[in-house]
Amino acid sequence: RSCTPTEVCSVFPQPSINVMRSITHEAHDYLSFRSHTCGELRPADVGEEVTLCGWVQYLRFDMFHCFKHFILLTYSLCDLPPESVIRVKGTVRLRPDGQENKEMPTGEIEVLAESVEILNVCRKLPFEIKDFVKKSESLRMQYRYLDLRSSQMQYNLRLRSQLVMKMREYLCNVHGFVDVETPTLFKRTPGGAKEFVVPSREPGRFYSLPQSPQQFKQLLMVAGIDRYFQLARCYRDEGSKPDRQPEFTQVDIEMSFVDQAGIRGLIEGLVQYSWPVEKDPVSTPFPCITYEKAMKDYGVDKPDTRFAMKLMDISKTFHNTEIEFLKDALNQPGGCIQNNKGFCVVLVKADGALKSPLNRLMPASAKQQLLQMAQARPGDLLLISAGTQECVRPLLGKLRLQCAELLESSGVAVRDPSAFHFLWVVDFPLFLPKEEDPDQLESAHHPFTAPLPEDAHLLYSLPHKVRGQHYDLVLNGCEIGGGSIRIHKASDQQHVLETILKEDPSLLSHLLEALDSGAPPHGGIALGLDRFLSIIVGAPSIRDVIAFPKSFRGHDLMSRAPDFVSEDELKSYHIAVNWPAGDEGNQEK
Amino acid sequence: RSCTPTEVCSVFPQPSINVMRSITHEAHDYLSFRSHTCGELRPADVGEEVTLCGWVQYLRFDMFHCFKHFILLTYSLCDLPPESVIRVKGTVRLRPDGQENKEMPTGEIEVLAESVEILNVCRKLPFEIKDFVKKSESLRMQYRYLDLRSSQMQYNLRLRSQLVMKMREYLCNVHGFVDVETPTLFKRTPGGAKEFVVPSREPGRFYSLPQSPQQFKQLLMVAGIDRYFQLARCYRDEGSKPDRQPEFTQVDIEMSFVDQAGIRGLIEGLVQYSWPVEKDPVSTPFPCITYEKAMKDYGVDKPDTRFAMKLMDISKTFHNTEIEFLKDALNQPGGCIQNNKGFCVVLVKADGALKSPLNRLMPASAKQQLLQMAQARPGDLLLISAGTQECVRPLLGKLRLQCAELLESSGVAVRDPSAFHFLWVVDFPLFLPKEEDPDQLESAHHPFTAPLPEDAHLLYSLPHKVRGQHYDLVLNGCEIGGGSIRIHKASDQQHVLETILKEDPSLLSHLLEALDSGAPPHGGIALGLDRFLSIIVGAPSIRDVIAFPKSFRGHDLMSRAPDFVSEDELKSYHIAVNWPAGDEGNQEK
Repeated sequence: RSCTPTEVCSVFPQPSINVMRSITHEAHDYLSFRSHTCGELRPADVGEEVTLCGWVQYLRFDMFHCFKHFILLTYSLCDLPPESVIRVKGTVRLRPDGQENKEMPTGEIEVLAESVEILNVCRKLPFEIKDFVKKSESLRMQYRYLDLRSSQMQYNLRLRSQLVMKMREYLCNVHGFVDVETPTLFKRTPGGAKEFVVPSREPGRFYSLPQSPQQFKQLLMVAGIDRYFQLARCYRDEGSKPDRQPEFTQVDIEMSFVDQAGIRGLIEGLVQYSWPVEKDPVSTPFPCITYEKAMKDYGVDKPDTRFAMKLMDISKTFHNTEIEFLKDALNQPGGCIQNNKGFCVVLVKADGALKSPLNRLMPASAKQQLLQMAQARPGDLLLISAGTQECVRPLLGKLRLQCAELLESSGVAVRDPSAFHFLWVVDFPLFLPKEEDPDQLESAHHPFTAPLPEDAHLLYSLPHKVRGQHYDLVLNGCEIGGGSIRIHKASDQQHVLETILKEDPSLLSHLLEALDSGAPPHGGIALGLDRFLSIIVGAPSIRDVIAFPKSFRGHDLMSRAPDFVSEDELKSYHIAVNWPAGDEGNQEK
Repeated sequence: RSCTPTEVCSVFPQPSINVMRSITHEAHDYLSFRSHTCGELRPADVGEEVTLCGWVQYLRFDMFHCFKHFILLTYSLCDLPPESVIRVKGTVRLRPDGQENKEMPTGEIEVLAESVEILNVCRKLPFEIKDFVKKSESLRMQYRYLDLRSSQMQYNLRLRSQLVMKMREYLCNVHGFVDVETPTLFKRTPGGAKEFVVPSREPGRFYSLPQSPQQFKQLLMVAGIDRYFQLARCYRDEGSKPDRQPEFTQVDIEMSFVDQAGIRGLIEGLVQYSWPVEKDPVSTPFPCITYEKAMKDYGVDKPDTRFAMKLMDISKTFHNTEIEFLKDALNQPGGCIQNNKGFCVVLVKADGALKSPLNRLMPASAKQQLLQMAQARPGDLLLISAGTQECVRPLLGKLRLQCAELLESSGVAVRDPSAFHFLWVVDFPLFLPKEEDPDQLESAHHPFTAPLPEDAHLLYSLPHKVRGQHYDLVLNGCEIGGGSIRIHKASDQQHVLETILKEDPSLLSHLLEALDSGAPPHGGIALGLDRFLSIIVGAPSIRDVIAFPKSFRGHDLMSRAPDFVSEDELKSYHIAVNWPAGDEGNQEK
């Protein structure tokens, strides 16, 4: 005659009703059929008449007793397939002695059911909704609405909503930011190979889906909006690259009358304010290192600082070496020898002696110096690489991460999985040599970044030496955000575009005109929300924090998008499909 | 030696710093170059050292005195073009006796400037930023970043941000809604003529930009999200229709275990909670009338209830009439005579006699009855129309609105411009005869709306008689929202799609499968945010509440989108432009 609600109804529909109750002081959920959510009842509610709605979960053998009573009141509930939807009316009472479940917040009570109504019967599902059932990625995507019922996905989406809400409170209510929506149907960036095109009804004319609201956020500063933010949908057509999401979300921020320290302070406050309460609090300010230091110590511009194993320049040790490949490397301009991992392996044996192909080539003093510099102890492995800094550092940087993974896969604790290491990386070069033509410069990030004030004079003499006011936010070795103080004077912007980058400035004439119309000094940042959340919840992919992601190949497996569109439907857009030779048969309609 | 900040710097950069100060209790704005915003200082700040940043406004003759002092400290400030950007450091002091400006919140103080720094010089602008300067729409759009500096546009965008923030607080924090982002690259709806297509890199396959997240919101209910909302960007390609915005924003809401009353209560609370504090409060519940009543009384399904002048059926008066056109109308099936405005004009003269072509055709008793029914007084005008209800009602409905406009343009107060009349319209027909084939039915709104419970049995016998659980929210005669309780059983949905609408249900197989996988009863609504805001701020167009709207013709006049894309860039999407004959010369690149 009784049923325990958390067993009859699955526990996932638990919106933050406690929050609601504390705000409205209402005992009942007046908007819904139900009086309470399934996870909400407690011993304090004993005696209360309640109405619950939810999904039937698997009938466990040890629950049979409860269900038998239930069946006396209703027909065939035992035959009701799991995941069917029911409404139960009844009275809350304490569970009989010995039947409490201390593991569950609702485990001390049960509901004496007076009526059960079947709201919808569930057909046989393609898989059971149990978290321990490992489903294939494609099955999860095809039946995403079932996959989302898992407690992990419920947690991820609800945390996303809460975190975003806290971010908005911080920006709008605490710091006076204005939430402004910017268009996603925009003009194509010349050469913007990663921008989706959208045909219009005017022959040959296309909109473009922008990769970020960069131009709009700067124009809003010119417009006197002062402090702008937006949770902005961005688009990137990565073509054949695997694991791509053609659309993603960034927390987009821009401020007037601000410097780097102001933006960094804002973001540190934002992260701290929105950080999930169930995690250890984040301490601020975040450490900050230069690009040069990041490359020197970690061989990468987004270091994972959860573990040490830093790179070390040991050129001094081999200053007078006779070892050919090391000598050659040191004789190159910018040549160095870095100790961490790499080409040459040195194992420190239990007796302190070295086991290495280099062993017999190194004088004792050099060995001594090496062990001292590296603070190497018996059992340690030294990896030595030689060459130009540009080659050696990234190589050792990658090896450093692979070593950490290798050690962890062998059970050695290298990184604390619950640790969150934030890091600012600053003082990036403003321009880099183009890969295809190293005499030409291109923007390291984008052409709107201002130079460091102390390097500004070099913009007109030695642009390749200029460091930019760009900053990246790194979390556990992933870049989760980046931004810059922008150029706010039209003449500087024109010089960068025309003289340094050899681009046609007329394509950005509206931005140049805007900078000439009383543009305030301004800067901003964009945080990759999907990546940030996936790190917080420990998800292997950003697909796990997006409600309806695209598959690895950019497909929606549920609705089967992208799909064929009839020739006729394309006519109003004045376009036709160029079928690759022999592929025409593929067209389904 | 002194300057008044609100005169030197324009007053628009005023984010809600007061809110910030009351929350953080910080006297200074630690993120920015400035210590205060220009509009923030008060007599209580006298003696304080401040740093202000802002735009130079027009130098009025009566301000010359102040500026002269200013010039003593800086060079050539008098020549500085308006809208240039400066930073002023100085000390707050009271204005001298007689120079106070009681009209301005900052009008009692001024700043004794110690230094002025020019941050950016403004070139000659295409127009002055004064609110009384009437600019052409195209000039406003081309230089939107200047147009946005006007106090009206600053108010509109800041109000939009605040209103949306309050909505989020209400939904997330008060009612436990989950903010979920849904994809905008989706599968094309078959026959979805208003959906933009987005070519993918797979030959012939296209994504589509959806008109609303309708399918996703229902799938989220199946997924157990329970309460979903999103400020959703939606797309609609209205082709050659004028005054279109190809993208717009809706407040998208869906709930499980809810009925119509629940959704209505939620929205009434939402509007009340987010309503601007400077407006008269909104009282709830909103009045609610049926579609039938709306058509009968107002001749339209979105009545402007700010004024009466209701339609009235006066068939009774002319029951035995000999007037030919009235007799003919009454003899038709569904024929009626409605009194308000229309074909035949009746003026009530000062002596109570009628002036009308009908006058000599009507017996005295009929005249008496007519005046009584219409409660007509001397000077009133009666407009009489006869025919089928389907013709007469919409005709008189339009005339009613035109009469109100005509009267208002002649200075007669008909509608209170500061009044906000919310109204629910319910009990719409679920299906309507197709215009091109009246024997065929089509959905009045969309095929997912559930029938009224009392009409549900008619779904299988007399579908054209079924009323739907659809509701529209009307504000001052504009539809600002609409929604419904959805069909949650797959068998009902299949019947509607296949048997009633004659559509191919396989195209929505993923939705049908989802309904069969334990879909809870659910319903929702979508509010048109742009329209809602434009009514609140009294703007003539939704362009005035959108930061970067498209022009009347769907163009971005600032960046010139949509624009031509080279043949080469289209190659990776396997499409080519079909140039209309003789139009190829138009291609610019």
